[in-house]
Amino acid sequence: MAAVLNKLGALEAARLLNRRELSAEQLVRACLARIEQREPQVQAWVVVDAPAAIAQAQALDRGAVRGVLHGLPLGVKDIFDTHDLPTRYGSSIYDRHQPHADAACVALCRDAGALVLGKTVTTEFATYTPGPTRNPRNPAYTPGGSSSGSAAAVADDMVPLALGTQTAGSIIRPAAYCGIVGFKPSFARVPRAGMKNLADTLDTIGGFARSVEDIGLLASVLLRDERLRQLDYDAKPRIGMFRTLQWRHTLPETRTAYEHAARVLSAAGARVEEMALPAEDCAIVQLHADIMAFEASQSLAYERRAYGSQLSTKLQAVLEAGMRISSADYLTLRARAAQVTARIHAWFDTYDLVLAPSAAGEAPFFEQGTGDPQFCRGWTLAGVPTVHLPFAQGPQGLPVGLQAIGNINHDHGLLAMAGWVQRELAEHPPEL
Amino acid sequence: MAAVLNKLGALEAARLLNRRELSAEQLVRACLARIEQREPQVQAWVVVDAPAAIAQAQALDRGAVRGVLHGLPLGVKDIFDTHDLPTRYGSSIYDRHQPHADAACVALCRDAGALVLGKTVTTEFATYTPGPTRNPRNPAYTPGGSSSGSAAAVADDMVPLALGTQTAGSIIRPAAYCGIVGFKPSFARVPRAGMKNLADTLDTIGGFARSVEDIGLLASVLLRDERLRQLDYDAKPRIGMFRTLQWRHTLPETRTAYEHAARVLSAAGARVEEMALPAEDCAIVQLHADIMAFEASQSLAYERRAYGSQLSTKLQAVLEAGMRISSADYLTLRARAAQVTARIHAWFDTYDLVLAPSAAGEAPFFEQGTGDPQFCRGWTLAGVPTVHLPFAQGPQGLPVGLQAIGNINHDHGLLAMAGWVQRELAEHPPEL
Repeated sequence: MAAVLNKLGALEAARLLNRRELSAEQLVRACLARIEQREPQVQAWVVVDAPAAIAQAQALDRGAVRGVLHGLPLGVKDIFDTHDLPTRYGSSIYDRHQPHADAACVALCRDAGALVLGKTVTTEFATYTPGPTRNPRNPAYTPGGSSSGSAAAVADDMVPLALGTQTAGSIIRPAAYCGIVGFKPSFARVPRAGMKNLADTLDTIGGFARSVEDIGLLASVLLRDERLRQLDYDAKPRIGMFRTLQWRHTLPETRTAYEHAARVLSAAGARVEEMALPAEDCAIVQLHADIMAFEASQSLAYERRAYGSQLSTKLQAVLEAGMRISSADYLTLRARAAQVTARIHAWFDTYDLVLAPSAAGEAPFFEQGTGDPQFCRGWTLAGVPTVHLPFAQGPQGLPVGLQAIGNINHDHGLLAMAGWVQRELAEHPPEL
Repeated sequence: MAAVLNKLGALEAARLLNRRELSAEQLVRACLARIEQREPQVQAWVVVDAPAAIAQAQALDRGAVRGVLHGLPLGVKDIFDTHDLPTRYGSSIYDRHQPHADAACVALCRDAGALVLGKTVTTEFATYTPGPTRNPRNPAYTPGGSSSGSAAAVADDMVPLALGTQTAGSIIRPAAYCGIVGFKPSFARVPRAGMKNLADTLDTIGGFARSVEDIGLLASVLLRDERLRQLDYDAKPRIGMFRTLQWRHTLPETRTAYEHAARVLSAAGARVEEMALPAEDCAIVQLHADIMAFEASQSLAYERRAYGSQLSTKLQAVLEAGMRISSADYLTLRARAAQVTARIHAWFDTYDLVLAPSAAGEAPFFEQGTGDPQFCRGWTLAGVPTVHLPFAQGPQGLPVGLQAIGNINHDHGLLAMAGWVQRELAEHPPEL
């Protein structure tokens, strides 16, 4: 059994831990063994403190059940402060940085009994410049970013759960490339204290798991909403299939997966409709990019000022672009974003759920960077919750899926319907 | 001249520094002398590093003019990280905390040439439990909170400018009690990286000065908007006088100031109208308090979990109240807040400016705590910019004024009109 304990999903492991049929120490040792075996290829971790993790597990095993994450090993993106592990934010500027406190989201998970196994690789300040992490399905490919290590660690069965952040596409895209479930909750639902801010109106905390039910368990702690542990859904959702105006950038595997999903879900009784493409929403990708550049150039003012030469050339260019946006133009962008956002929220008068591409297709080669967030920017800007669902494969044998999008602050409804979608698609997989 | 240099306003000092008619060293030495003289009574500072400040001043004097704050001493509320000064957040939990980086807003000010003179006293995590700071007008009274030290330091001519934050009433109230200008910009305009978060949808960074023009100078850096240095205004604003539903809590000095302002501004040509009190807005004070309690209990998850006994009893009670609010109830509160906020934004179709009480009246006695934020909660919840204008006195000889409120993201218009209001009221002061 030890050989497969690391493959247990979060919910199943939690049930066994709760009944004391599995010890936290057994589980963490299985995860550590997997990491020892695979980390040389995957390189998902900045730091793993194995002795401390085992000691934490033993302490959890000795005590009462602390909460719904009792004994579950957790990967923490290295963009979150941890009081007991160094925190580098993916930048040499913070090489010797040891925070005093845990980020609030880390503390919430620990309070629920989670065991922080280590810190996972992030791109530089959760932007563009990759870390060393490889796609665990095939090391020639990128795992995506910026939450590279968290996605890779969960996909490679090193941990059942991991924390991530999304400012553009940093949860959904790596989830898509690694073939797992990634969840970006509604904006401003998970407290951001102790994360390295990038863009105040966009930064959103979420996480990774290998099933919708598992991510619901983690989300119930992050959003402090126990309803997220009850994802029963037996209605037939009204689904808007939305190709987005980036459809021309999708690769054949995404088009196939999209059409397959529409077919299967329609056959399962959902009302499935192609959504019209409102021309005014064409601008949303650029709107997001400009707002993010302005805000990032403000949020990283200290690093820009004191350590400019230690920023990557790419990030310097983004920050300089942000600096060239005037305050008046920024406010115009925000006003336009508010209009588009209101239109997107109104879609949910007609649809319960929107399905759209998460990425162009399979993961790009490692050398090509972490991929393009263009399929995610709009949803982040609109603050709506979104979850990536893996269910197909592309020509390289890498994972493909779609993202399910719900209305803002309807995180429970979204995950419940996404669970239904995932089950239907699992029962009717696409032909390879 | 040395004896009065510390009394120079920010704009006037900046002009002299810019022409090299005043050196940064002269100015900082005058400020340090004032602090040495007065700090035993006022206790505005957590830490002042005089030798470092003088060295910074000398370096600024040797170099080119860096920016619009070149050589201006700045007080930094001890809720912001500073890479060269310890940062305590008003809590013994952080007694030995030395951040690695500056908060983004501190870096923006330094980049513009400001000289960080030291860290100013904050209440515990910018909430309720006071620090030692006394009202510089009369040490028997509170300076207000949570930005106690920043307001007191500016009011006592220790520095021309200081940074603060407002989550409920933490800028406007201390500005009112200390008799200076306090400015809370629109929500999400000043980057929050490196500040200790309390409530993600409410925390707002702003500052203090002794005139509207001076705060415009600081705000131009924080909001990166040079228009805030050009506050010309020669129109006649449409002013809504808004008693608020807390009017029954106002003291006679506030009622007198309110009526005086209405009379003077009307005589100056403004269209001045009493605004109706929409009954639905009655709930906004409690709405804000509940949303803040929920979010604070999430943001302070680490401190609650690891250092619960080091939190004040008052803060523990607030966090426990926040913990009792369910996620479903929180979302209902947020939805109601969005409705009230939209109504408030719509007021500005009819009015250019709203004038309302900043506090019940003069500062309470020191022993009574830092005062009630009830007159500020609604404006913080609505995200609208607001500026306190001091222009009157109460029966104890302490300052009294009103706050001017503008529409969200109309920070420039608000400050321009507030400058006009301040000039008119200065020309027609109330009788004592």
